[in-house]
Amino acid sequence: MTTKVERMPNWLKKRAQLTPNRPAIEFDEKIYTFLELDLLAESTARKAAALGLQQGNTCAVLIRNDIRSVALIHGLFYLGVRIVMLNHRLTANELTWQVKDSQADQLIFDAVFSEKGKQVQRQLPLLKIASMEVVQQVPEDNQARIISEYVMDETATIMYTSGTTGNPKGVIQTFGNHWWSAIGSVLNLGLTEKDCWYCGVPIFHISGLSILMRNMIYGMKVVLAEKFSAIEANKMIQEKGITIISVVTTMLNRMIQDLGDEGYPASFRCMLLGGGPAPKYLLEECKAKQIPVYQTYGMTETASQIVTLSPEDSLEKLGSAGKALFPSQLRIEIDGHEAGPNEHGEIVVAGPNVTSGYLNQMEATEKAIKDGWLYTGDIGYLDSEGFLFVMDRRCDLLISGGENVYPAEIEAVISKHPAVFESGVTSIEDEKWGQVPIAFVVTNKNHVVTEEELLMYVKENLAPYKVPKYIFFCEELPRNAANKLMRRKLKELGSRS
Amino acid sequence: MTTKVERMPNWLKKRAQLTPNRPAIEFDEKIYTFLELDLLAESTARKAAALGLQQGNTCAVLIRNDIRSVALIHGLFYLGVRIVMLNHRLTANELTWQVKDSQADQLIFDAVFSEKGKQVQRQLPLLKIASMEVVQQVPEDNQARIISEYVMDETATIMYTSGTTGNPKGVIQTFGNHWWSAIGSVLNLGLTEKDCWYCGVPIFHISGLSILMRNMIYGMKVVLAEKFSAIEANKMIQEKGITIISVVTTMLNRMIQDLGDEGYPASFRCMLLGGGPAPKYLLEECKAKQIPVYQTYGMTETASQIVTLSPEDSLEKLGSAGKALFPSQLRIEIDGHEAGPNEHGEIVVAGPNVTSGYLNQMEATEKAIKDGWLYTGDIGYLDSEGFLFVMDRRCDLLISGGENVYPAEIEAVISKHPAVFESGVTSIEDEKWGQVPIAFVVTNKNHVVTEEELLMYVKENLAPYKVPKYIFFCEELPRNAANKLMRRKLKELGSRS
Repeated sequence: MTTKVERMPNWLKKRAQLTPNRPAIEFDEKIYTFLELDLLAESTARKAAALGLQQGNTCAVLIRNDIRSVALIHGLFYLGVRIVMLNHRLTANELTWQVKDSQADQLIFDAVFSEKGKQVQRQLPLLKIASMEVVQQVPEDNQARIISEYVMDETATIMYTSGTTGNPKGVIQTFGNHWWSAIGSVLNLGLTEKDCWYCGVPIFHISGLSILMRNMIYGMKVVLAEKFSAIEANKMIQEKGITIISVVTTMLNRMIQDLGDEGYPASFRCMLLGGGPAPKYLLEECKAKQIPVYQTYGMTETASQIVTLSPEDSLEKLGSAGKALFPSQLRIEIDGHEAGPNEHGEIVVAGPNVTSGYLNQMEATEKAIKDGWLYTGDIGYLDSEGFLFVMDRRCDLLISGGENVYPAEIEAVISKHPAVFESGVTSIEDEKWGQVPIAFVVTNKNHVVTEEELLMYVKENLAPYKVPKYIFFCEELPRNAANKLMRRKLKELGSRS
Repeated sequence: MTTKVERMPNWLKKRAQLTPNRPAIEFDEKIYTFLELDLLAESTARKAAALGLQQGNTCAVLIRNDIRSVALIHGLFYLGVRIVMLNHRLTANELTWQVKDSQADQLIFDAVFSEKGKQVQRQLPLLKIASMEVVQQVPEDNQARIISEYVMDETATIMYTSGTTGNPKGVIQTFGNHWWSAIGSVLNLGLTEKDCWYCGVPIFHISGLSILMRNMIYGMKVVLAEKFSAIEANKMIQEKGITIISVVTTMLNRMIQDLGDEGYPASFRCMLLGGGPAPKYLLEECKAKQIPVYQTYGMTETASQIVTLSPEDSLEKLGSAGKALFPSQLRIEIDGHEAGPNEHGEIVVAGPNVTSGYLNQMEATEKAIKDGWLYTGDIGYLDSEGFLFVMDRRCDLLISGGENVYPAEIEAVISKHPAVFESGVTSIEDEKWGQVPIAFVVTNKNHVVTEEELLMYVKENLAPYKVPKYIFFCEELPRNAANKLMRRKLKELGSRS
């Protein structure tokens, strides 16, 4: 009498067998059915196999939202190859770090990122690389073995997040994590034959990848946008039958600004809002316009949503992220004990969608996950009815346009500059991006460096969205008695600057 | 990196926490919210605990469709007590067999079945029994421990099915089996806020119990009928917003007979038709009336549906049961190898909803389940598109009004009569019940017995739906060279009689 959920039929193949002619993905005005998507995926798998990829390998992918990228992701699953999902906004140095840390056997990149791909290879000469164009051109390997079953405990994808130490960590996402995330969501949001999910978020992030998972598990149509445009998104909702869209605050902001008085049709049933707390005025504006905003709380480590508002509460519980989805659990902890209603503490979550840990990082894993519970570092409280209010993402994290930015990572780069003695990074509010980083720098004695010079240096090493908006030079950083940087003080300094 | 799905939050408590004020069950014109159902269940749990039931116990229940029965089922889950679901149409002798075989610690029965309950106790003097009234009257045990998590591998329920040997076997249904059954169904049928599932099938059968599972897992309203009435069911669909109903052929037949020209409203989206193949004329009549019939194939061993038509195929693939649900798999076997399209063979299924086996019956389990695949004994084929057509439930099984009837079980009873030398049971078509059993009897030399006497004798030992409609006396039974009863020959005899 053992559990029988360890393996399941290959998801996309199963879906293609169940509902072959149902529309799966719309991209660039072309619609692909599930059968067509399966054929594309299998072809891509056989081409990737011809390049030497096989079961048990790890492949890093540098892709943009595109039908070929979707086929590549499924194709690599078909081969039993683990995928490292790279953020194409990162610099070559950052990418190199992740490719190396993940011990990827190969890097496949979209032609538009060729330069970065080659830079990575220059730093890792033994790494095999191929552009998507090359993948498309090689003849298929007809001997390649296509996986007929997905093993729930096996790693499907690895996504890097940074953190307090400044070194990005590879979050392990198993097939089971993705499955349970999709199931938790469907038991909250429901599913109808008319559903169509708009994916304007990047598929290399969990926000986008989780839509591709729901796509095949639900048999639900997805409209994939190469780049997010508020005008286009509004048009799709108003004219093309989109019923659900995933957004972060900046996206919602722009959509509301573009939206005229006409609003959205009744068929549009869910504006799924993730990526950090949203300003109250924006939520109120949405409520006034009868837009069904569902706030949600989740992260790479929870394979997307873990706490989401229910339909009946979406307009009533303004500002709350809701309750833990059906398969998951949530509590607030203060100094190791459970907080009472309205008491602020650390958000701690558990469930089958929660990662088993960080790749090759036993210590970091044990620090973050205790007895199956993930300590998020984020601060929040539960109201008397059990609704979660996220007060602030952890103070060592800021969210800029939906991207997680870790001050420690920026500080680590700035502090390497020869002129810099030490640095402290915090965030200020920004109308467009929500938050943007700013830096405080103490220079070494007798060293001179300009703000411009330092910013140039940072740009070479970090993705654009991590580059501080301003750098302030100062005599010393605010530290407590234990010499620990006081980030909240830094924030006060920033808001006065 | 172990799988994390072994345990989940207590389902009904989780649901009551997520959507406390949503309607859960409507029974006898009263609506109970999920919070109210949780309170009822917890109260019932504490009363059952006061009667001595505790985690690890087994409790047999002899109940009818009633809100108190629903509370009892959940209440026993709350205590961690395994439930033996008894069919109240069985005789005291049949019930005694099941209670004894399951080693139940206690029997709880609805007052209307008091006589049967007491008869069972007379045969099992050590068995503790209590009527639902007694359960309601005892004071709650406030010390009783309510289970906070359901373990997927643990046995939730046991349901007896008979079989070729004539001895009923207890099918083990784990929480995991019920969970995956509910998930497989929702990924096929979808789920909307307006959904309301009509349960006019018995909750002691998997057809009814699975609706109670979906009820809490989906947060979906269920209307529970004490007894099925075609007129009432039609009225509920036409006037009360029922969107889905589970039926067997006889129920559907009566509903169609009662249904006037008005038909059903567009909001009614699924007539889920189980319990054996349906006659083509009935399906065609439904199609003509635009009734969305979804044929399904499933059994106690698969915790309800395992093969069901998809929405897009429900009107197009008349007569097919569809394809294996998302988490499950299906194949047709002939002599140990997989059949090609349109080849008839044994239906073999696998999936996390499939039972781990029969209670304390290792041999029967190993015979039925090989390498995770359940050999159903039913005959069917897949067409070229992979749709299952069930030709015939196994020839040793007949289905009468949705109830499984095993000829071998009836033969075993008849053959015990002193005047009987041997007997053979088969079925004939019946307008009302689909099929009904008939018997052929060879008497001992010099023994005289009338049909009436024999029928009386059978009625004492078997549930009414198992009693043969006719008994024919004959000189000998058709047997093959190996002296095996030729059931198909018997069937021919029956149709000529």
